[in-house]
Amino acid sequence: MPTSFFNDLLQTLTDRGRAILGLPRDVVARGNVVELGEHLLSGRGEASGVALARAVLDSYAAAPLAGRLSFLTALAERFGADRSLVEKAIEAYRKEPSEANLHALHTAAEARRQELMRRLNLAPGGTAALVRMREELLAHLSARPDLRIVDEDFVHLFSSWFNRGFLVLKPIDWTTPANILEKIIRYEAVHEIRDWDDLRGRLEPPDRRCFAFFHPQLVDEPLIFVEVALTGEIPGAIAPLLARKRTPIAAREATTAVFYSISNTQKGLAGVSFGNFLIKQVVEDLKRELPNLKTFVTLSPVPGFAAWLKRERQAEASDALDADAKATLRLLDEPGWHEDAEKAERLRKVLMAAAAWYFLKAKTPKGRPVDPVARFHLGNGARLERLDFLGDTSPKGLEQAHGLMVNYLYALEDIEKNHEAFAAAGEVIASSAVRKLLKNNAPSRAVTLIPTD
Amino acid sequence: MPTSFFNDLLQTLTDRGRAILGLPRDVVARGNVVELGEHLLSGRGEASGVALARAVLDSYAAAPLAGRLSFLTALAERFGADRSLVEKAIEAYRKEPSEANLHALHTAAEARRQELMRRLNLAPGGTAALVRMREELLAHLSARPDLRIVDEDFVHLFSSWFNRGFLVLKPIDWTTPANILEKIIRYEAVHEIRDWDDLRGRLEPPDRRCFAFFHPQLVDEPLIFVEVALTGEIPGAIAPLLARKRTPIAAREATTAVFYSISNTQKGLAGVSFGNFLIKQVVEDLKRELPNLKTFVTLSPVPGFAAWLKRERQAEASDALDADAKATLRLLDEPGWHEDAEKAERLRKVLMAAAAWYFLKAKTPKGRPVDPVARFHLGNGARLERLDFLGDTSPKGLEQAHGLMVNYLYALEDIEKNHEAFAAAGEVIASSAVRKLLKNNAPSRAVTLIPTD
Amino acid sequence: MPTSFFNDLLQTLTDRGRAILGLPRDVVARGNVVELGEHLLSGRGEASGVALARAVLDSYAAAPLAGRLSFLTALAERFGADRSLVEKAIEAYRKEPSEANLHALHTAAEARRQELMRRLNLAPGGTAALVRMREELLAHLSARPDLRIVDEDFVHLFSSWFNRGFLVLKPIDWTTPANILEKIIRYEAVHEIRDWDDLRGRLEPPDRRCFAFFHPQLVDEPLIFVEVALTGEIPGAIAPLLARKRTPIAAREATTAVFYSISNTQKGLAGVSFGNFLIKQVVEDLKRELPNLKTFVTLSPVPGFAAWLKRERQAEASDALDADAKATLRLLDEPGWHEDAEKAERLRKVLMAAAAWYFLKAKTPKGRPVDPVARFHLGNGARLERLDFLGDTSPKGLEQAHGLMVNYLYALEDIEKNHEAFAAAGEVIASSAVRKLLKNNAPSRAVTLIPTD
Amino acid sequence: MPTSFFNDLLQTLTDRGRAILGLPRDVVARGNVVELGEHLLSGRGEASGVALARAVLDSYAAAPLAGRLSFLTALAERFGADRSLVEKAIEAYRKEPSEANLHALHTAAEARRQELMRRLNLAPGGTAALVRMREELLAHLSARPDLRIVDEDFVHLFSSWFNRGFLVLKPIDWTTPANILEKIIRYEAVHEIRDWDDLRGRLEPPDRRCFAFFHPQLVDEPLIFVEVALTGEIPGAIAPLLARKRTPIAAREATTAVFYSISNTQKGLAGVSFGNFLIKQVVEDLKRELPNLKTFVTLSPVPGFAAWLKRERQAEASDALDADAKATLRLLDEPGWHEDAEKAERLRKVLMAAAAWYFLKAKTPKGRPVDPVARFHLGNGARLERLDFLGDTSPKGLEQAHGLMVNYLYALEDIEKNHEAFAAAGEVIASSAVRKLLKNNAPSRAVTLIPTD
Repeated sequence: MPTSFFNDLLQTLTDRGRAILGLPRDVVARGNVVELGEHLLSGRGEASGVALARAVLDSYAAAPLAGRLSFLTALAERFGADRSLVEKAIEAYRKEPSEANLHALHTAAEARRQELMRRLNLAPGGTAALVRMREELLAHLSARPDLRIVDEDFVHLFSSWFNRGFLVLKPIDWTTPANILEKIIRYEAVHEIRDWDDLRGRLEPPDRRCFAFFHPQLVDEPLIFVEVALTGEIPGAIAPLLARKRTPIAAREATTAVFYSISNTQKGLAGVSFGNFLIKQVVEDLKRELPNLKTFVTLSPVPGFAAWLKRERQAEASDALDADAKATLRLLDEPGWHEDAEKAERLRKVLMAAAAWYFLKAKTPKGRPVDPVARFHLGNGARLERLDFLGDTSPKGLEQAHGLMVNYLYALEDIEKNHEAFAAAGEVIASSAVRKLLKNNAPSRAVTLIPTD
Repeated sequence: MPTSFFNDLLQTLTDRGRAILGLPRDVVARGNVVELGEHLLSGRGEASGVALARAVLDSYAAAPLAGRLSFLTALAERFGADRSLVEKAIEAYRKEPSEANLHALHTAAEARRQELMRRLNLAPGGTAALVRMREELLAHLSARPDLRIVDEDFVHLFSSWFNRGFLVLKPIDWTTPANILEKIIRYEAVHEIRDWDDLRGRLEPPDRRCFAFFHPQLVDEPLIFVEVALTGEIPGAIAPLLARKRTPIAAREATTAVFYSISNTQKGLAGVSFGNFLIKQVVEDLKRELPNLKTFVTLSPVPGFAAWLKRERQAEASDALDADAKATLRLLDEPGWHEDAEKAERLRKVLMAAAAWYFLKAKTPKGRPVDPVARFHLGNGARLERLDFLGDTSPKGLEQAHGLMVNYLYALEDIEKNHEAFAAAGEVIASSAVRKLLKNNAPSRAVTLIPTD
Repeated sequence: MPTSFFNDLLQTLTDRGRAILGLPRDVVARGNVVELGEHLLSGRGEASGVALARAVLDSYAAAPLAGRLSFLTALAERFGADRSLVEKAIEAYRKEPSEANLHALHTAAEARRQELMRRLNLAPGGTAALVRMREELLAHLSARPDLRIVDEDFVHLFSSWFNRGFLVLKPIDWTTPANILEKIIRYEAVHEIRDWDDLRGRLEPPDRRCFAFFHPQLVDEPLIFVEVALTGEIPGAIAPLLARKRTPIAAREATTAVFYSISNTQKGLAGVSFGNFLIKQVVEDLKRELPNLKTFVTLSPVPGFAAWLKRERQAEASDALDADAKATLRLLDEPGWHEDAEKAERLRKVLMAAAAWYFLKAKTPKGRPVDPVARFHLGNGARLERLDFLGDTSPKGLEQAHGLMVNYLYALEDIEKNHEAFAAAGEVIASSAVRKLLKNNAPSRAVTLIPTD
Repeated sequence: MPTSFFNDLLQTLTDRGRAILGLPRDVVARGNVVELGEHLLSGRGEASGVALARAVLDSYAAAPLAGRLSFLTALAERFGADRSLVEKAIEAYRKEPSEANLHALHTAAEARRQELMRRLNLAPGGTAALVRMREELLAHLSARPDLRIVDEDFVHLFSSWFNRGFLVLKPIDWTTPANILEKIIRYEAVHEIRDWDDLRGRLEPPDRRCFAFFHPQLVDEPLIFVEVALTGEIPGAIAPLLARKRTPIAAREATTAVFYSISNTQKGLAGVSFGNFLIKQVVEDLKRELPNLKTFVTLSPVPGFAAWLKRERQAEASDALDADAKATLRLLDEPGWHEDAEKAERLRKVLMAAAAWYFLKAKTPKGRPVDPVARFHLGNGARLERLDFLGDTSPKGLEQAHGLMVNYLYALEDIEKNHEAFAAAGEVIASSAVRKLLKNNAPSRAVTLIPTD
């Protein structure tokens, strides 16, 4: 239980905050964030740094939206590198292209906001405040592309502060403190947790597990968590896993660990990925605890499928769908089709073939799979193992993927190879079963697939 | 007690290490560190990164001295920035000096070794291994100034990883695990701890305290620690504080907290300072625990005094010493002078005046105080409070400072002001008592001193 | 947080259970609890004791009701003292009435079931199983008075095992593990906790506290807990304290700590009292944490008032009520009277006078106060401070006490004196305000009351 | 690590002590322990019980020897049962020998000191104070046999309070807090631990283990501990196990766990045995951690051998030694014989045969083995596995056993059977190798030994 340690740490941090050393009080009183930032940056020493950093962050938090936005703008415009120093460094490097001069150029070209962020991070609660600041920044980016350079500095620093070595994996279960558990309820992004009973059903039964990454600086805040079901086989639908009145099995009898939900909790850490590490470590921890586990697999949503299929159906010329397929797919427009056994059966083959195409052949402009969940798991070195027809018949499941779910398989011995093939050549590693679905659909097209099974 | 958490974390890290995923085994087998490093850096993803980082660090640790030195050399020569990219970035920036192009130049000019170090840090035990690597690097620097650029990158990254926000202050006492305590014995650098009984005498009595900073990545390793005596007045000598058979006082009766020993433990973290934070936080924690404490003061060695005095005595023209003083100081050359009350009394005035000069007027070429301990405490915002004649008559104390010790006073309300005066104008903040010693000596010279008391 | 320790302990206990040493398996297989018990008791050593005790308890738990009842009956009938040994011991004592022979008589007269219970207690989970066994026994007592002797032995042993020295007080808050918190929800007996949000409202606000006693042998089981509200004055009604949308105050501003709910959780520990210790220790802990707290008071239900009043109203001759009072009290029979300001006002004086009589003069046959909650707090040395008209207008509050609540005041300096007066002379210590209510009602009767304020 | 919990608990207990409620101060001031005891016992409630109990214990601790002895005497003489009540209870029982009357007789015959001890146990630190009180009592027993009845009540209560269910097994290692470790050094009773380095040599190497039992009421006090060496075979001598510069083996390579030292720490708990439980639980824990361990064995001293042998050598007629044997054994009187290979070899056979007789045939008047260590391990169900000639050539080892050591084997599957045979029939379970040694010596005597191997 990390809590007592974390609370301890929190206490330490909070107490430290009381030591507001002698501040330039008029500046603080006026609460001019930018001026405070300049003051913090210009400080020759650390004597008042912590208190000043705290003042900057407090001023920011207390400022109205316009004030906060002007601070973010100032970060972009006024806390860049000193251009005259950059010029001098370029000159010096060109005159003598030594390693030392190159290093000096690197230093001169570093935006001053990076050092400012480092100093803000010294404040008690500083890391959390900066993560929230970036969350706000991200919301502005589409309207304010000029702020993107600030975001790049955030990502650079966060990648260092949240590097894997600082993350601690902890099991989440029914003995976990309630203040952590309520965050699991709040942050679950894949299959909503309705209330505490629902939560308990995912944590307490012997065939359920949950794990989260914590960071010493974000006390009592899980950064990412994964929910796991222990089963006797690879499941093809989510509802039985979440059923309230199911009969659990003994953990030692399980052969399969199913990752059925992975949720990031901190929007401000977007792009600083831990999911990759999380899954691999959970695989290892579970293997050690339960040697009977042989199969590690996800049961995943397909968030982009319905939108893609709609486009293909509307396209005059679709590589993915021929006229017959389009005709059959009209059944999708009839409400309740999934509860009509006959309609569903007619749709199955066509929909599965289209799905195979979606995963194996549909690409983004950069040549990567269209589906974001697929990109994540394939990028981790998983294999697309199975497509699950009507795996999720909840309104959300029907809307985003016509009920489709998929299983990605994590085979530790193949992860490296799969990852390299995907990263280097863009190959989508899929089981022969998935590939066969494609062949049925489009035998005439040449698809290069490496034989992975 | 952080230990169970730290052990937990250690276990986590160790376990993770077992997961050596599919490695390019021939490279590992050959153990070519540089090649491994390139491989690690070129990796497109993180799939094998942890295992590879572990392999690089293991190869380095297992290599002979020459091999390790060649890796350090390679870090300097082969893992700098890509100069062609730097050229292009300069051109682009000159063509269009936008923030984005400046950021791109900064990125291009970053030595590749920085990213390499970040990736090595992902290995279990990576941080500790990098700290040891830098310790070794520091030992080579005087002979190999070309490696200094590598050191600068180490300092840059360590400053980020070991920033104040990640450090946890913990009391060290007689209930602390033995494996931590033996490190306190080993690392004590000011007043040697001879054995466990000696250690207990510094931890267990009610008027003794000890605090250390820990970092989540260096398990069971105190980074820096301070030993504190609670007393009724500012002490003028170390021996009574360390006496084995003294009678302790109740903590609540103490009015003064004396920091009589501060030791850094990690040579590889030289220049990444925590001492400043440590003292200030300990002051606050003690104030909270014991509201009766009014005075926070050090009892500090004067490591540079004897050497400086020797130079002054030998100098033909000394501003600090006149002929009379030099004559009297010859008594210092007589062994056992400090045990001869009459000789000691004759020396007292002259020696104290010279010491005042040493602290207040002697400067390094950069205009800073000659004494390194003075630079540390004055830089923290402390005040030079008192000079203690014959404060340390141990062989070491006599040799390095003719027995002189000093007290630096930490008055929280003045710290900021003192620090600024010292940092901005190089002013040595001293009590009037210390300043008077100087006046007696050299009335004719104008010394600008701000009135601090 | 005791949990990790408790879990640790639990693990230890559970693991130990695996070591079922060589058992007389046929006995176990047949599951004859009584025979197993005899076997356990006859064991010459402890070698197989733990496993055998486990087997007895498992057999008991698995037996049907009739089997369990027959075991309890056997405890009464077959596990008493050996009467022939008792006879011999009496003879020996009469012949030579030495201390040693008296001790031998004591030993001979001890029911064998006591030793059996002690040995059962050695099993992992033994204490919890015995507590559950007694809970079942209590349910049989009214129909089976012959089992009362078994109950006395339970109480004797439980008083030893659950003595104050073994209990650990722990705060319960929103960082407490969920498996503990759900028991708080389940066991709250005074003011129902409806759901987790309701629970949070009682734990998380800065002006709320909760404390529970734990015992090392009943892991994760609070034995008794008290809910506390920090307020600015003595509250006269429960609804504002429990209101969901109230505005909390800062803990440091509170002057009054209100114990508004105390719940025992283990029926099997009935008669083994901890409440007394709990309140006193919570008073001390709160005083230490919040020196501003001056007043420690309950807001308590009056569970016996309505029933008593009904009897008095129906009695032809009531000392407590005269004809006028009876007439007025008929308003109580009109539904919704408490929401009718005029009716309520007419009732107030009469009802309060009757309540004063109820507390101060109504007695059980043994001469103790009729109200069980009054007996508890007065026995603890508290003072009856104030009667609160319409303090609890919930259906339960109206039904059991016509809305009446009361405040008992815990003044540490008077507790001993109050307790002694109550215990020795049956005096009900009450404030003058409460006593005045009585005088108004029955001025002609002499009531001896010590002047406590 | 139990420490934080224990410290927490300690804090709780200490804090509680501050609440010295209203005491009868004159009694306390006069410090009459007996009077205080009567007061405590006569208390009608618990209101002042804790404070009063503390006062009794403090008065006792502060009293001079004579005062303490008079309190112990008073426990025997004045706190026995009330004899008139006993008489009445006997009469009632004889008139109607019901279970209830028998229970009443049991209650009446209970010495009042038992209840007094229970109430003293409520004080903070009460349990520890009572354990110390009994330690003192034990020292008086031989001179004051009248106090033995007090001791019996102590044992009765301690057996309840320190029953197995309340004990927590914890590993002791180099991460254990120093305040616990110094007690391991102090209490080690078999093979002295000279200093902290010696201690470390027994805790830190991978092939060493140590375990202790703790009790929640005796904070930071191990009650009993066992030191374990992991080896490749059953060792025949202690010196190699304790050698400072030995090369440890990996724990996973070990096949044998050797219990080479078991020490009780609390004299006041003599006769309240935990050793039995300790060894069995450690066997189980080690088996779980290290499945390769197949053999669990002690390396034990033979404390009574030399004294017994001396008596046999001096006896005119010895069943154990014939004239030849006596002649050979004269070599034992020559100093340094054990370092003279030839003498040692001449002695070996005779000494080993005598030792076999000592273990297998020499009996106490009650028919039990003469050797106390043998009684302990055989009573636990262990088997006498091997006699080790010159196993301990330290001065102590030579003096008490002419260098002899022995191995007792703990085979979990035989423990119950061995224990029963020993407990029921007094059979000494020994390996055939040990029995053969006896046969060689005394073939003409019939010794019934069950074939255990």
